[in-house]
Amino acid sequence: MALGEFELIERYFKRPVRRAALGVGDDCALLTPAPGMQLAVSTDLLVEGRHFLSTVDPARLGHKSLAVNLSDLAACGARPLAFTLSLSMPRVDEAFLAPFAQGLLALADEHQIELVGGDTTAGPLTIGITVMGEVPPGQALLRSGALVGDDVWISGMLGHARLALEVFRGQLQLSGEAFEHARRAMECPQPRVALGLALRGVATSAIDLSDGLLGDLGHVLRRSGVGAQLRLADLPRSALMAEQQDEVQALCLLTGGDDYELLFTAPPSRRDAVRAAAQEAATPVTLVGSLCAGDGVQVLGAGGVPLDLSGRQAFDHFRS
Amino acid sequence: MALGEFELIERYFKRPVRRAALGVGDDCALLTPAPGMQLAVSTDLLVEGRHFLSTVDPARLGHKSLAVNLSDLAACGARPLAFTLSLSMPRVDEAFLAPFAQGLLALADEHQIELVGGDTTAGPLTIGITVMGEVPPGQALLRSGALVGDDVWISGMLGHARLALEVFRGQLQLSGEAFEHARRAMECPQPRVALGLALRGVATSAIDLSDGLLGDLGHVLRRSGVGAQLRLADLPRSALMAEQQDEVQALCLLTGGDDYELLFTAPPSRRDAVRAAAQEAATPVTLVGSLCAGDGVQVLGAGGVPLDLSGRQAFDHFRS
Repeated sequence: MALGEFELIERYFKRPVRRAALGVGDDCALLTPAPGMQLAVSTDLLVEGRHFLSTVDPARLGHKSLAVNLSDLAACGARPLAFTLSLSMPRVDEAFLAPFAQGLLALADEHQIELVGGDTTAGPLTIGITVMGEVPPGQALLRSGALVGDDVWISGMLGHARLALEVFRGQLQLSGEAFEHARRAMECPQPRVALGLALRGVATSAIDLSDGLLGDLGHVLRRSGVGAQLRLADLPRSALMAEQQDEVQALCLLTGGDDYELLFTAPPSRRDAVRAAAQEAATPVTLVGSLCAGDGVQVLGAGGVPLDLSGRQAFDHFRS
Repeated sequence: MALGEFELIERYFKRPVRRAALGVGDDCALLTPAPGMQLAVSTDLLVEGRHFLSTVDPARLGHKSLAVNLSDLAACGARPLAFTLSLSMPRVDEAFLAPFAQGLLALADEHQIELVGGDTTAGPLTIGITVMGEVPPGQALLRSGALVGDDVWISGMLGHARLALEVFRGQLQLSGEAFEHARRAMECPQPRVALGLALRGVATSAIDLSDGLLGDLGHVLRRSGVGAQLRLADLPRSALMAEQQDEVQALCLLTGGDDYELLFTAPPSRRDAVRAAAQEAATPVTLVGSLCAGDGVQVLGAGGVPLDLSGRQAFDHFRS
């Protein structure tokens, strides 16, 4: 007989309660936020064929489902506390569930957070996670705080997930090893939680790069009422990326999507503080441009000539 | 051109921030819980064809998607604060979205809660909501607090949603007016939030009836380590239900599902307090049985003879 809904939760997702006052199994979970903290809440929905391929390793899918949500907390400078999981699956498939739960809960353990509630049902494979974190009042990193003259910074490397996507789409060829590297970036993103925490009080704004650099930077610019100038040559790229044709590099770096790096802004007077935060979080950061009066993004290419960005847009889950 | 993800959220779901410190549109929403309160969190996922029919009125679907989540807070005795929405749809369909948002947000307004975050994507029609509420520490109504000798109470009426389902399945015929009445119960359940709040300090345990009386009562009994005896004749039923054949009544009342009434327990010495709470919440309640030592449920039928309940089980979203 197939596992029912309750046995499924019991077997794969129920664990001893640690920080929550009450965990999985009642009508609600109960959390006790630290006194005086604000609660940061974010939610993401992953649909098969749209956000992941049916061939993905379930453990990596479990990891990524939580990682993309933790990335939102990171961009807010919030410390993760707990999450809920909604899982719709065509049938109870233990060969899927066991590694999925393992990948999901391993990342949860890494960040010392608990799964406090969930819902499972039959249906198309869909994963919904809502994550909760805490941040002292007034210290959250918002999209709206960037100022003219601020530096623009990016954590880590950009574009690997897009490289892997182009291989899956048959638009690009990579060696086996290079493809594995790019695919790992796409399937196992590392949320920059430690960096987000270290940037409290340092960054004037932050966002996580999920839809591509141009699109996500655009959100910060609109919210903050400023423009930006970036230098293409300054964008952080790996040796693998540097080997690609110029056009592929520009595509992956500027509009790649699925990077889950942080883009943040800070005054030039705080460069030492930014570098100290990056060191504390053991996360590389790169200075890629600056904010100016006006709106929109100008990207300077070879010889300081602005690139024509018309036709390049952010990834939209209803359009792409 | 079709609406994109950002315009969609802007047009249908973004509203002025009221109680949240920061609403929709950043990486996270920010909430400021009242000092000293615990946070109650619950999540539910609704899938087309499983939890609702493709023919359902979108406004009713919006209402129900939030109602089933508020019902979990009600069963916990928590006051609703805010919710997040994850919405996957085959395409951006404004004829669906406008009434869906209207039904959803009307119920949110009724309970003075805010939509603080969300994610929309293309995919099979799936609605995921996570709701957050607050409750003073130690006052949450849990499944585990029921005691031998307690009364068992139920709010409202049972079984109308199941009557409607049996009509949709072609197993039952009802007059047009009766069907509309039953269908409204299935599609527009009213979460018993006021009753849950009024029962703090009165009820020893509570659960909301989503999977059917026998199954949900079973959760309370297992968590509390007690058994229960109910009288079938005492179960609350409408005039419409009382007209049905005995077998149909037993099916709908005992295993119906989708009722979203509260089942709760309280000592016989608190009957006046229970009735006062029900009056305060303007919600009818009915005394239907009592708890005893042992485990499982015994239901007494005509002449006090126990019913044979073998083969009757709770609704399971992977089995039914």
